[in-house]
Amino acid sequence: MDISNELAIGIDIGGTNTKYGVVNHRGEILQQGELRTDKYQEVESYIDALFNTLQPIIKSIEKANVIHGIGIGAPNGNYYTGTIEYAPNLKWKGIIPIAKMISDKFNLPAALTNDANAAAVGEMTYGAARGMKDFIMITLGTGVGSGIVANGQLILGHDGFAGELGHTIIIPGGRLHEGTGLRGSLESYASATGLTKTAVELLEKNPETDSLLKSHAGDINSKFVYECAMKNDKMAKKVYAYTGKILGQALANFVMFSSPEAIVLFGGLTRAGDMIMKPTREHMEKNLLPIFQNKVKLIFSELKESDAAILGASALVWEIKTDL
Amino acid sequence: MDISNELAIGIDIGGTNTKYGVVNHRGEILQQGELRTDKYQEVESYIDALFNTLQPIIKSIEKANVIHGIGIGAPNGNYYTGTIEYAPNLKWKGIIPIAKMISDKFNLPAALTNDANAAAVGEMTYGAARGMKDFIMITLGTGVGSGIVANGQLILGHDGFAGELGHTIIIPGGRLHEGTGLRGSLESYASATGLTKTAVELLEKNPETDSLLKSHAGDINSKFVYECAMKNDKMAKKVYAYTGKILGQALANFVMFSSPEAIVLFGGLTRAGDMIMKPTREHMEKNLLPIFQNKVKLIFSELKESDAAILGASALVWEIKTDL
Repeated sequence: MDISNELAIGIDIGGTNTKYGVVNHRGEILQQGELRTDKYQEVESYIDALFNTLQPIIKSIEKANVIHGIGIGAPNGNYYTGTIEYAPNLKWKGIIPIAKMISDKFNLPAALTNDANAAAVGEMTYGAARGMKDFIMITLGTGVGSGIVANGQLILGHDGFAGELGHTIIIPGGRLHEGTGLRGSLESYASATGLTKTAVELLEKNPETDSLLKSHAGDINSKFVYECAMKNDKMAKKVYAYTGKILGQALANFVMFSSPEAIVLFGGLTRAGDMIMKPTREHMEKNLLPIFQNKVKLIFSELKESDAAILGASALVWEIKTDL
Repeated sequence: MDISNELAIGIDIGGTNTKYGVVNHRGEILQQGELRTDKYQEVESYIDALFNTLQPIIKSIEKANVIHGIGIGAPNGNYYTGTIEYAPNLKWKGIIPIAKMISDKFNLPAALTNDANAAAVGEMTYGAARGMKDFIMITLGTGVGSGIVANGQLILGHDGFAGELGHTIIIPGGRLHEGTGLRGSLESYASATGLTKTAVELLEKNPETDSLLKSHAGDINSKFVYECAMKNDKMAKKVYAYTGKILGQALANFVMFSSPEAIVLFGGLTRAGDMIMKPTREHMEKNLLPIFQNKVKLIFSELKESDAAILGASALVWEIKTDL
């Protein structure tokens, strides 16, 4: 079968923006663009707008190529049902049958999953996990997401909601996560929000410090912590060391669950490079049984952050069975 | 295909005893027996003894039936390689290619996995998890073992060692596990050994208690804790409540990993029934994201404990591909 002219459309639905792209089997994005998600109170008018934006692109491409389908990544997207279910960051409430709506409108097969699962499929298809059958993708952004692949398949669970590793409890009775009400979950430490909180707590505990962090004390964010750490600020570096410690402890638990060949880290926090990687690796290894030690590849994503969501969504298309 | 006369041999290798049985597709054990494992310093002489014991049984059965293969459950048994690797409770050290040795000796296909994975396959084939594609088996015995099934397959990991949930850290910096050196792992609380330790600790903290546990203070074990609890002893019941709390916290993390339809509990500790089930369920639910709450079936195994190991091992045989 000649696949050189097969293309997939990837759509990443975020709370503010929707990104789309047309992708080939090599993971090259041939065309891409954006539209606002939050402008549309009703999902129907959003889909009309998406169609009107994409239709000219599809028309121009269709002559020389075959569009195989549409892959969609969205918060709380369920692969089994094709529905977005109660996504807190979207205006459309309740259960939205987005895959069917898009498939009907475009007359193309469509597949949906959540953002982190899409990232995992993208990494497996085009990125650092190419050829791997067992790996875990951890996205370290505003929150902590995850996509788990075992036996070469996404672990979706009986209801499609598997892989919420950001909400596993690492420190029982620990830091309160305001969104979930859970205490001590990974996300309350190893996200951009968690990193900022760690910095604020350290400042509060050390009022006499001369850390650079102090200059923004009332209005600190993860970008500022990063900048201070790059200027070799001791306390800012401590923030990364602590974040890596918690993340490493969590990863050890994940390894003893599914014994992956690799854990792929992705997202804003990975920009800190070794500052986050070193303590993470150290504390992961420290908490592993000997049979797992020095075996798991802890690596950064190979996908460009701005493209990853589109690539991940598009990669779902190659998984769609042709009898759909 | 007529499968009514297809049989499987299940062999469960423990540190002290080896149990074997001949099993049909309905999970009925037609013949069974035992031999000592620890009598044989060399694995070769053990396999000779096993062969001499089983051969007359096989001969007597073979006329009317087809023996499909041999399934083996063993500590540190690796499904991929068919080897037992550095099992601390066996006399045979290093890496033992037990599946190949048994297969060659009996001239039958053989498959190996660890005890907890075998239990999971047994439960899926004959027990409480029949028809389920996503569930987790937790064995609560001297230690804590686990077998994880997702998408209808055992999660084995890239190296065959997945599913060591007993060694995941639930209380960082918590109780020392003497066997592994890890602190706060599930096994150091939710095993027979852990239960006993909890009782000892509670007694030490409350020297003035009039608990029945005190009468055996120097020489307490999990059976005695159970007996005291059945006599409505307050402190003994507290031991179960605490054990269930830790177990429930751990299960919540497991649910957020693979979103199973059910968690099946098996082994000595489950004899305590509601005393362990109630706190476990309560603390599991408490630590779950709302999308997972009140969805997971938390159930006891349906396999008789004395038969489960043989059934589990035999069930591996039905998974053996006939082109082996």
